[in-house]
Amino acid sequence: MARMTVREKLAQLYGVWVGIDAGGEMAPHQHDFVDAEIDLDDLARHGIGQLTRAFGTRPVDPAIGARSLARTQRQITTSSRFGIPAVVHEECLTGLAAWQATVYPAPLSWGASFDPDLVRRMGERIGQTMRRLGVHQGLAPVLDVARDLRWGRVEETIGEDPYLVGTIGAAYVAGLESAGVIATLKHFIGYSASRAGRNLAPVSAGPREIADVLLPPFELALRAGARSVMNAYNDIDGVPAAADPALLTDLLRGTYGFTGTVVADYFSVAFLHRLHGVAAGRGDAAGQALAAGIDVELPTMDCYGEPLLAAVEEGSVDAAVVDRALERVLRQKCELGLLDADWAPDVPEEVDLDDDESRGLAREVAERSIVLLQNDGTLPLAPGRRVAVVGPRADAAGAMMGCYSFPLHVGVHHPDVPFGVEVPTVAEALRADHDVTYALGCPVTGGDDEGIAEAVSAVAAADVCVAVLGDRAGLFGGGTSGEGCDAPDLRLPGRQEELLEALLATGKPVILILLSGRPYELSRQAGRLAAIVCGFYPGEEGGPALAGVLSGRINPSGRLPVGFPAAGASQPSTYLAAPLARRSEVSTVDPTALFPFGHGLSYAPATWQDVSATGSLWPTDGTCRVRVTLRNDHDRPTSEVVQVYLHDPVAEVARPERQLIAARRVDLAPGETRVLDIGLHADLTSYTGRAGRRLVEPGDVELRVGTSSEQIVSTLHCTLSGPRREVGFERVMAPEFSS
Amino acid sequence: MARMTVREKLAQLYGVWVGIDAGGEMAPHQHDFVDAEIDLDDLARHGIGQLTRAFGTRPVDPAIGARSLARTQRQITTSSRFGIPAVVHEECLTGLAAWQATVYPAPLSWGASFDPDLVRRMGERIGQTMRRLGVHQGLAPVLDVARDLRWGRVEETIGEDPYLVGTIGAAYVAGLESAGVIATLKHFIGYSASRAGRNLAPVSAGPREIADVLLPPFELALRAGARSVMNAYNDIDGVPAAADPALLTDLLRGTYGFTGTVVADYFSVAFLHRLHGVAAGRGDAAGQALAAGIDVELPTMDCYGEPLLAAVEEGSVDAAVVDRALERVLRQKCELGLLDADWAPDVPEEVDLDDDESRGLAREVAERSIVLLQNDGTLPLAPGRRVAVVGPRADAAGAMMGCYSFPLHVGVHHPDVPFGVEVPTVAEALRADHDVTYALGCPVTGGDDEGIAEAVSAVAAADVCVAVLGDRAGLFGGGTSGEGCDAPDLRLPGRQEELLEALLATGKPVILILLSGRPYELSRQAGRLAAIVCGFYPGEEGGPALAGVLSGRINPSGRLPVGFPAAGASQPSTYLAAPLARRSEVSTVDPTALFPFGHGLSYAPATWQDVSATGSLWPTDGTCRVRVTLRNDHDRPTSEVVQVYLHDPVAEVARPERQLIAARRVDLAPGETRVLDIGLHADLTSYTGRAGRRLVEPGDVELRVGTSSEQIVSTLHCTLSGPRREVGFERVMAPEFSS
Repeated sequence: MARMTVREKLAQLYGVWVGIDAGGEMAPHQHDFVDAEIDLDDLARHGIGQLTRAFGTRPVDPAIGARSLARTQRQITTSSRFGIPAVVHEECLTGLAAWQATVYPAPLSWGASFDPDLVRRMGERIGQTMRRLGVHQGLAPVLDVARDLRWGRVEETIGEDPYLVGTIGAAYVAGLESAGVIATLKHFIGYSASRAGRNLAPVSAGPREIADVLLPPFELALRAGARSVMNAYNDIDGVPAAADPALLTDLLRGTYGFTGTVVADYFSVAFLHRLHGVAAGRGDAAGQALAAGIDVELPTMDCYGEPLLAAVEEGSVDAAVVDRALERVLRQKCELGLLDADWAPDVPEEVDLDDDESRGLAREVAERSIVLLQNDGTLPLAPGRRVAVVGPRADAAGAMMGCYSFPLHVGVHHPDVPFGVEVPTVAEALRADHDVTYALGCPVTGGDDEGIAEAVSAVAAADVCVAVLGDRAGLFGGGTSGEGCDAPDLRLPGRQEELLEALLATGKPVILILLSGRPYELSRQAGRLAAIVCGFYPGEEGGPALAGVLSGRINPSGRLPVGFPAAGASQPSTYLAAPLARRSEVSTVDPTALFPFGHGLSYAPATWQDVSATGSLWPTDGTCRVRVTLRNDHDRPTSEVVQVYLHDPVAEVARPERQLIAARRVDLAPGETRVLDIGLHADLTSYTGRAGRRLVEPGDVELRVGTSSEQIVSTLHCTLSGPRREVGFERVMAPEFSS
Repeated sequence: MARMTVREKLAQLYGVWVGIDAGGEMAPHQHDFVDAEIDLDDLARHGIGQLTRAFGTRPVDPAIGARSLARTQRQITTSSRFGIPAVVHEECLTGLAAWQATVYPAPLSWGASFDPDLVRRMGERIGQTMRRLGVHQGLAPVLDVARDLRWGRVEETIGEDPYLVGTIGAAYVAGLESAGVIATLKHFIGYSASRAGRNLAPVSAGPREIADVLLPPFELALRAGARSVMNAYNDIDGVPAAADPALLTDLLRGTYGFTGTVVADYFSVAFLHRLHGVAAGRGDAAGQALAAGIDVELPTMDCYGEPLLAAVEEGSVDAAVVDRALERVLRQKCELGLLDADWAPDVPEEVDLDDDESRGLAREVAERSIVLLQNDGTLPLAPGRRVAVVGPRADAAGAMMGCYSFPLHVGVHHPDVPFGVEVPTVAEALRADHDVTYALGCPVTGGDDEGIAEAVSAVAAADVCVAVLGDRAGLFGGGTSGEGCDAPDLRLPGRQEELLEALLATGKPVILILLSGRPYELSRQAGRLAAIVCGFYPGEEGGPALAGVLSGRINPSGRLPVGFPAAGASQPSTYLAAPLARRSEVSTVDPTALFPFGHGLSYAPATWQDVSATGSLWPTDGTCRVRVTLRNDHDRPTSEVVQVYLHDPVAEVARPERQLIAARRVDLAPGETRVLDIGLHADLTSYTGRAGRRLVEPGDVELRVGTSSEQIVSTLHCTLSGPRREVGFERVMAPEFSS
């Protein structure tokens, strides 16, 4: 029986960054960080563990791309001794990052939908698209809990609450995995807490904050069947995640029982040497990462190639850690059918990556995630009004997309290539219902007085102004939000606040639509705006969805997954604040949110008829049932998001004054009454105590049931009774709902 | 032999907030937080552990105050069974917080002096003043390392570097203790890292950051003989310092061997119940604080009075922890001579709290701490020029003082009472040398266009503008800096930036003097300013000292103890940044300081002749000697601060890219050459490794010797050789200097 050489083993543990060129040929991608020339023919002889970003490197016709990818897989399997195909991975945060593929809303919108079932269906659809093209692994979802709104990647998060992020993220995972695609949970762990919201900066956090805020989404998503985890770039208290065996092995595999693969965030193995200064060179970095538990280096073979080979051969890296990673990779390839005797690469005949079903799903997510933040009655807009649509995001298709969408991630480098999917702008979509004039006002950044004056003129001649402001998503300085596009403060980028002031000065009612990757500080204008609508990045169908909300065709039902900051917008800030982090006489800074977590208005708000609990005694190992009766008194469908927050007045440690433990969207037909029954296991009250273990403690608690973290309809007083319990990963993490 | 009752024991463990009223009588102080009526006569029967703020509650003639205090001590000793006098404590952060006492520069200026010997002399003088009045314990120094410039109490810190804070703080402690006054180290631990710089907010930090950044100043100051420690208000990762036995007992007493007393920060025991939610009531809070290691509740008896008595009597608090605290308190009273048979209260005949020697010391600290940040040659000001002195801090005596100075801490509540000490303003002091016109421009906050226009007119009629801007120190909303006066961002308060722009628009050279409790964002104006002088709060002699710098009579020699922030001023930020927290292509936010830590210019800069090390091999248990030869080529005295930064390229954990390990001020007479010899023990390279223990590791390091953290004159490459060593509290913490 043939045995693998060390070189052949290592070949299974790295990716090779390829891309399909204009002629449909697979061509190695030269990235700034990569100094080695890549010879695909030579590499293929040893086998290749993963192929990096076949579709997401250049715009390529997907059918041609799939055929090219199949050819490369055949080359790998025929030219190497063991004939093992590569795992093909691709980004899929807002849909598959491929040309002509549906651009779905970005994750903040998933959070705003508060609709896990919808997100699961979206994930499944994305997975089916990927699978058809021969892609096995998707580098999503991002499960980082937003901690500092200045961070450029806030737009990639699902929100600021661990329960929401975990519930929605797990739904996405279940969807993607149900299509046979490996979901990759990222970033494990801490990335969102980078100091001052700067990309990759060190994280100051203790073990309790990590356990109670940052880890729960990963715990939920692992249970949902995720088969891969990606390390975070950052260090926590000095220890880089990529070199931390306590995190990647002891916790992930030991405590959580994870059996899938851990893949490196791009270049993060080399960063152990180049940026963290914990490794003396690339071989040392590879050895530390492998020993910590990173099985696969991505995107390419900087460290797990020649440097690791040399380290293993000289004995400074234990061959056993190579075999350990290899076994995990091969087991996963086996599960994927890649080792089956009859395996053959997928070659789809015809490919439509933006079919009606996908587009319809994108529309549904957009419609259910738009958040109406305030409204003085100007919305819905009466038909026939003359509407001046102004602002840098009013007539920009790119305004609908996050930084991991193909058009903004890759397309921007190919300005002559069209987006590949149809993306109606807000201005275009509003023309269906209204007499629309358009003026830019100012670009997202920059601009001049003349442009602002033109916008003012346009508004003066109209009945109402719709100002569409926000971000340009991009990468590493290419945008005002997105990876590497951090903000020093939360003022609207460029001259947009000035534009907004000029529009308000006209005296016409101004409706603000915010299309952005993060909440901005609106405290100076909110009181004078007629209405504020937050769309985050609503995807390719965002324009029509927003127009639907403005016209009233769509009843807005999204809820904020991240609060809008108070005046001054001091960061970091989170609604998960212990009493001492909330407003008090001890500081001149009042962190009370302008629009709190969970907030969102409706044109037809549900009537809360009754909130009750089945008794006030709650066994520490039992379930408390909360019943909420909602009625729709309107002649149109509506939707409410019932939110249950826990308040624990006395605990071993300082706890958030309130924390979401259950949320459920309830759709109500006109005139309908529904009773929502929520089963809350006592495990949902657990937190990490003094000794570092998770506790359910007897004692009084409050269940605050309401429509946002600050709008509480009813407070239920319960007493947890029975013994103090320690619970772990096996605990109940989600409520039960029936209605 | 009589035994103390529990009530009598507890009486030794709390303070009673008294103050001397206008008639010279001791009167209990009613604070908002205190709901109990205090009957001093009744309390005195059981004894009283401490008397709180006899001099710092109301303006009172110090001689009358001292006599009144003596009467109260006699009452306590005669009316209680055991006749034990109280320890009298008072604030002393900028000198004794008493009416008519010298107002010294605030701690940022101590740091800027880089002159521990001078600070030691100041501490000794302050201690002598206190001792004379019958005050035994001073609630200073603040050893919190500045972590977020928005925090209102940054002005109370010595700076952002642990070595600087520790060295200067230890010098203050040595001075105060040499006068027989107990120094109280505060705040133990973490306070300065409160989230988003909000007073009392939770701290996110891991054990390594605590050990390597926050604790070293306390370690140095404990070695300098501090006999008391005050807990921090905040929690770290959920655990309030006031209820943390690992911190207050295991670390402080177990590891550090501390035998003095731990006193509560004001009201922090009650906060365990009211704000942290870790105690079910005041008795529970008292029990937890006492068990954790807080021996004395201050300022009064909220929890250690009746609530603790009840808890001990019902058995829920162990009597042994009461005895443990009692023993510490009584041992300290014994040391102080309070238990001596011949003890009698101090009754000074005549009292001058602001004598020439004290005032001279205040002047010396001011002169040596003023930092010249930039200068295009406009300074020193040529004699005879017409100078327009403008700005809200230009003619304000209060501008010279920090929030713990008596005039701003207490005096503000008694507007009819004069400051009690003479405090020349900048405008007044400049009149000695120049033809001065003055205009306010705008107040620190608020103001109108007219005021700004007047200032512009004044500048237009002058040759040069001196703009004096900054903070009004105060408490809990009473200022723009100081305790409870946190900032949402680092723009100059109010309309001061607008004023500065208007002054610059005149085209006249503008010299900015900043009198503030924190660095502000000057990035938009710095390039257009003729010169920038930073005085922080220079104390009662600050005006003449600043005038001396402007005229050239004083050669500026202060160095920044905190860097001035980059554009955007993202916080938190520190020069102690790992590579990933520094400027890089991965973030749009560039945190490079405008003026870095350690920066400061001179009118007569020293010439660096030579920097060398005695060999490049440095034993891991030995000393590396660095020799710096400096020459003064000018015809006036000068002063250089030689700074040595460590760069460790490969370590177990991510480390600051550079960290100060030695700094020495060298004074040079005209024409003088001096050789500074610095002995650096390898222990100074130690850091907390993966296993949580402090390590000295073999390997290459760089010693970067220069004039600031960014201006490196010479880099010495050394190799630590020998075994890897674990070191603890016994390690060498300070370099040796000779010259």
